[in-house]
This record gives sequence, C-alpha cells and structure tokens, in this order.
Amino acid sequence: MTLAEIITIGDELLIGQVIDTNSAWIGQQLNEIGIKVHQITSVSDNEQHILSALKEAQQRADVILITGGLGPTKDDITKYTLCKFFKSNLRFDESAFLQVEKLFKARGRQVTDVNRKQAEVPEKCEVIPNTQGTAPGMWFEEKRRIFVSMPGVPYEMKSMMQQEVLPRLQKLFTKGVIIHKTTWFQGIGESFLSDMIEQWELALPAHLKLAYLPSSGILRLRLTATGTSETELISHMDEELKKLHAIAGEYIFGAGDDTLEKVTARLLTEQKATISTAESCTGGYIAHRITTVPGSSNYYMGSVVAYDNSIKENFLGVPSSMIEKYGAVSEEVVVEMAKSVKEKFKTDYSIACSGIAGPAGGTEEKPVGTVHLAIAHPGGIFTKKLMLGTDRERIIRETAYNAFNNLRKILTGKIK
Amino acid sequence: MTLAEIITIGDELLIGQVIDTNSAWIGQQLNEIGIKVHQITSVSDNEQHILSALKEAQQRADVILITGGLGPTKDDITKYTLCKFFKSNLRFDESAFLQVEKLFKARGRQVTDVNRKQAEVPEKCEVIPNTQGTAPGMWFEEKRRIFVSMPGVPYEMKSMMQQEVLPRLQKLFTKGVIIHKTTWFQGIGESFLSDMIEQWELALPAHLKLAYLPSSGILRLRLTATGTSETELISHMDEELKKLHAIAGEYIFGAGDDTLEKVTARLLTEQKATISTAESCTGGYIAHRITTVPGSSNYYMGSVVAYDNSIKENFLGVPSSMIEKYGAVSEEVVVEMAKSVKEKFKTDYSIACSGIAGPAGGTEEKPVGTVHLAIAHPGGIFTKKLMLGTDRERIIRETAYNAFNNLRKILTGKIK
Repeated sequence: MTLAEIITIGDELLIGQVIDTNSAWIGQQLNEIGIKVHQITSVSDNEQHILSALKEAQQRADVILITGGLGPTKDDITKYTLCKFFKSNLRFDESAFLQVEKLFKARGRQVTDVNRKQAEVPEKCEVIPNTQGTAPGMWFEEKRRIFVSMPGVPYEMKSMMQQEVLPRLQKLFTKGVIIHKTTWFQGIGESFLSDMIEQWELALPAHLKLAYLPSSGILRLRLTATGTSETELISHMDEELKKLHAIAGEYIFGAGDDTLEKVTARLLTEQKATISTAESCTGGYIAHRITTVPGSSNYYMGSVVAYDNSIKENFLGVPSSMIEKYGAVSEEVVVEMAKSVKEKFKTDYSIACSGIAGPAGGTEEKPVGTVHLAIAHPGGIFTKKLMLGTDRERIIRETAYNAFNNLRKILTGKIK
Repeated sequence: MTLAEIITIGDELLIGQVIDTNSAWIGQQLNEIGIKVHQITSVSDNEQHILSALKEAQQRADVILITGGLGPTKDDITKYTLCKFFKSNLRFDESAFLQVEKLFKARGRQVTDVNRKQAEVPEKCEVIPNTQGTAPGMWFEEKRRIFVSMPGVPYEMKSMMQQEVLPRLQKLFTKGVIIHKTTWFQGIGESFLSDMIEQWELALPAHLKLAYLPSSGILRLRLTATGTSETELISHMDEELKKLHAIAGEYIFGAGDDTLEKVTARLLTEQKATISTAESCTGGYIAHRITTVPGSSNYYMGSVVAYDNSIKENFLGVPSSMIEKYGAVSEEVVVEMAKSVKEKFKTDYSIACSGIAGPAGGTEEKPVGTVHLAIAHPGGIFTKKLMLGTDRERIIRETAYNAFNNLRKILTGKIK
C-alpha cells in the first residue's frame, strides 16, 4: 500500500495558537484514493528541524505532503529549506508571478518586492498553481518519492489538492478500484445509529468497509469498496445502501457532497418555490446558511432577524399580548412569525425560530437550549420544540439543521 | 530550554476521522510554563510504529507526552507497548481499580473484566489518577526523560494535565519566564504589514521574537519574550508594542483574545448604543457574527436580510427608480438601506451592505467581489467600496470584517 506522511510546518501549531485541521482533511482525501497516511509530523519554522523531518519521512513514506511556511515573511523558511534539501537553486517562475499579479490586481493593489519573491521557486520543482493565494505549490520527485509543498492556509491548500495534487497522486499510485459512498444523517446520535444498524454492519461483505465520520449535529457514514470491477462494486454498494435506507432512512438526508442547504436548495428550485425566514435565537445563521449556496437568490427572498421583541411586534406583527402571555420563546410566537414573514415577503415557504441560546435567559420551565421552530408551507404550519443542550454555538447550529431537515421532509412529502 | 514532544496515537487521527485538538491545547499549556513543544507526532495504533516514535522522541525532547490508545478495546495497545519500551511488567493497581469501580457505580453499571484490566499498569510507572474516566494516566522517568501517557479523550486528558501533570512539570522544569502578546490586524495583508513594520522588526531586541499568524481576512502578530523578570519583560514588550501601534495602529483592532465582534460589542455596551443591520450579499452573516457574542441582545435589535430587491424596496424603502438607475450594488442603495433600518429599528447605529458574492452576477463594471458598505451613525453615514476577490465565502466573511472594523473606528472616533 502507498504510504504518505504529512509534515506541517509552523511554530503556531506547536504553541497551540492554531489547531491543525489540514492534516485531518488531507488524511480523508488520501484515504479516498487508497493512500494511507502513516504519520503526521508537526515541526517548527527551523531549518535543521525541517531538514531532519524530511529525511525521516523519506525513509518511511512514498508521498510526503508538506504544508505551511510559504508566506512572504521572514519566519517562513520552507522554500529555502527545500532548496537545501534538494540541493537546488531558486529560479523566477513567470506563471507564478502572473498569478500573484492577477490576485493583486483583483484587489486593486500593487505587487511589492516581497510578493515578487513569492514567485521564486527551487529549480528542481514543478510549480503547482495556487489559484487562491500568492504562494505557489511545489512538486518534487526524487528517489521515487513524491514531495509536495503547499501553503498552510486551508482554502489555498484544499484548492491546490483538489485541482492538481490528488488527481496526480491518484494517477501515480491508485491500483485497482476504490469507491466511497457517503450517507448523511441528521437527528440521530452516533451510538444510537450504531445500535440501530449493528446487524446490517456485521453482515457487510469483507470488501465493503464502514466508517463513522461524526461532525457536530450531523453524522456521516462512509462505505468504502475495494476490488477490480467498478460496476460490480457499485452494484454491491447500492444493494447495501438500499438496506441501510430501509433501516435508518428517516434520518438520512443526502449522499456524497450533499449538505442540508444544498438538498433543500435543489428541492426548492425543482418546485419553483420561494422561501423567507424570521429568526430570533439563530440571529441570522439560518439566512447565512441558505445564502452560502450559490444561486440562492433564485428562491430566497430574505429574512427578518427579530432579535429584539420590538422587532417581532413591529415588523412581524406578533401581538405584544401574545409575547406577554406565552413568552417570546413559544410555539404561538414562532407560528405568528412564520405566517407573517411568509405573507409579507410573498413566499411559498418560511422558517421561523425563537429560543434561548444562553448562557443567560434560561428558566426552570424554559432552560437554555429550548427552541421553538415553525415552518409555514402551502399546506399549513409545522411546529417542533427542540431541546439542544447548553452550548450557545451548538444551539444555533442545530436549530438550523433541524429547520433544514424538516423543510426537506415537508418538500418531499414526508411531513404533511 | 526544556523541550517537549507530543505523540498522539490513533488511526482515527491519520485517516482524518478526528481532528487533533489535544495537541494545540497541550502546546498552549506547556508554553505557559516555559516548556516548548518541539514536535508533534501522530502515529497509528501499531506497536513498531509507536516504539520507533518513542525512541526518536527521547533523542529530541526532555518531556514526552503521549495521548491515546488507552481504551479497553483490542486496537488500543499503548499500555502494552509502553511495557515493551520500558521493559516492564504489568501490575494491578488498587487505587486505579477503585476509580473504575466508582465511575461504574455512578453510572449504575457493573465492572466488566475488560474494564478490570484497565487498572493494570506497567510496574515502572507512577499512576496519574483519572477522575473523569477509566484509563489511568502513567508517569515514567527514565534516563532523565519524563514520559507521560494519557487518554485521548479531551476532557479526561485536560483534567489530568491540569490536576497533576502541569504542576509536576512546572516544579521540575520551569526556569525563567515566557510571555506572549498577540496583536490583531484587519484591512492589511501579511506582505504589506511586513513591509510597513520591517525596520521595527529588525530592531527588536534578541529576547523578543515576532511571529505572523495569518487567518483569512485577519492577521495576528505574536510577540514572545523570554527572560527572568516578568515585570521587565512586560515593560519591554509594552514599549515595543507602543512603537508598533505608532507605525501600524490604523490596522490594529485588538489584543489577546479579542475578536472584531467582541471589540465592537464592548464599545457598543460601554456607549450604551444599539445597532441594527440591513444585509444583502452577506445574507445574514453579519447578524450571525454579532449574535455569536453572548449578551448581544443588549445592543443588537435585528436585521433585514434584503436578499431580493423587492425586500429592499418594500421593507427598506429603497426606491425602485434608485435601484434601476444605480443598481442594487451601489453606494446610493446601501446608504438608503442603512438609513432606513436605523430609523425603523430605532437604533443608534446601523450597518448595510450590498455586493456581488458570485459566482454569477458579475459585470465588467461591477465584477464579482464588488461590495458597497454603509454604516449609519449619529454623526452621519460612512461608506466604502470594497473589492474582495472571487471566492464567495471569503467575500461574505471579509465584508463582515470590514463592517466591524469600520464600525469600531467610528465608535472610537477614528472615523468621524
């Protein structure tokens, strides 16, 4: 099996100022093309240290992916250290410079000498274009080992990996066929799902492997098939996934690259339907998640973030007597909010929520984490009371997930 | 200087199933007591691999902190590998067993044989009590090196570190003082800042070190001082930071744990001022960022997310003729949006923006990334045109940063 090693460079990782999320992402991506990360090594911005990490890594791995230390400032020494390691001089790369220039132009700025230097690369490397930033990536091949140096900024590194590095590595190293299928769940915890699908999991054939990929409030299951015939593998997987849907289908909202936002976006677009939102406790987060999807302006009209009760009263027509009687966090109030924004913004659907995100504001009757959700649709109004724990960020996030997943169920006729 | 190495053990880290947040936390904690993490190494649950990582680490570091691989299941082999490494046999530890028993009792469960085994530890180690879980920590001293093995579960590891490991290490190793001070910048790129402060940086005394910690749209500079007298170091740092403020102060928005949201929150609270927002291209993101701060309901009234032009017209009173004449992405329209929401929501301040977040919608005259920002304040209206590149998420994020930072400048009288 092809082994990889990740070397992350930067004092900020060692003193804990930055959490290394790159390595986990790279590990996942490599895994999908059948390359196993054998070790992750984080070292400081120090020449000797980087050199010895490179030497050790080439003893252990076929592919060495290096992130970080490519910025334009003095403490970034990865490029110069790679020159030493490969006994190579710097050359000026015209295409890399054009990219720097283009990026600066788009921002209405002049290229400085410091940035001009970013277009210098070791002679022995092939440049990997950086479409998101100024530091080019570098690809080295030596003694049948591949070394790739990339920026540490996550979106620059990810774009480079997806556009260039992963396809190249796949061509070089992937033997046989590996297929992954991801299934997305909302509304169920890992241990509950694990219990629910235990029999199915135990009965999986040996060439199909299951992995749980939890992330907060959402759960991913990845099924991986290895073999020689793609058609055969896909048919085996589809068969098993059909069984999985039969067991736990009510919690499944999508597959592959799906997100709850994308799935609901697709459904709204297909149905030529429009939507609006009226948010209290989520403070604009639901609107934000909807509008992260490109093209959302086709179906999303807008939101009233009614953080203060006066906004609920004056702009969403919630009677102050209702707020007094039931409280701002109540089914009655969110129903009124959903109705009102749907009517005022002239949309087919609307989402409204009100809750106690904490840390203050909880009572015995309505503790922190109590959220009321309402979704107005052409057939009526769906409501749900949620209890989402005590973590503010999590309450906000999970309210949005719940809103999207219930909207999805309404749009697909699973909730009427 | 005392050097530490962190070894994290577990396949789940290498295939990217779990992001390693432990190392960053440990790095921070050690740093505060003057121990520098020299390297972080993540290895698989494999005996040979763990043994070689231990051997390499003891060449490099004085303190080796090991996390993970202490669970009760077959794939957890750290303890048995440590027995091999230290040529030590297992012994049954009564106090560790009592802790396991206590924990099971509290959960209303019987201790199983598998868990009984967790109370077995290598003869050569000293047990570090685990008050949060069933796997005891282990402290080894050999050849003037300290090795500590801890569980990988973050809250178990953290509690063990705080209660036992950090105090012991501090007693053994802390000589001298290390102080860090972080300064936050917005509105300037790394290379521009680097040029601007070059002379200052070059003139820093040897015991003060500077590091750039970029994250998208925001920049952090960390100054680290090492020496013997805390008072002296702080006074040296403050002196240098004063100079830094004199050179680049216009881009500095905070220090330490500050975020733009927190800084503006503090200013609004101090000035007993309220704020509202009217967002188009950011689609609720500004409202979301404001409301991530606990207590934001004290000064934040709400938002109109006017994603569709009809909402700008009907709810923010932007004349349709104005949108026709100047376009929805124009200074004229955002000024109108800011004025309107400030008046309707009865706030002292308001933020409005409209822009082209892409990927579609760009024109030659107004390419993707064009954003108009307006901030209405008691003294008038501030406006700014931004050009923020082509990445949708980044355009949204940096619009928010620009809004907060300009609001901050208005609140502190730097913009009138």
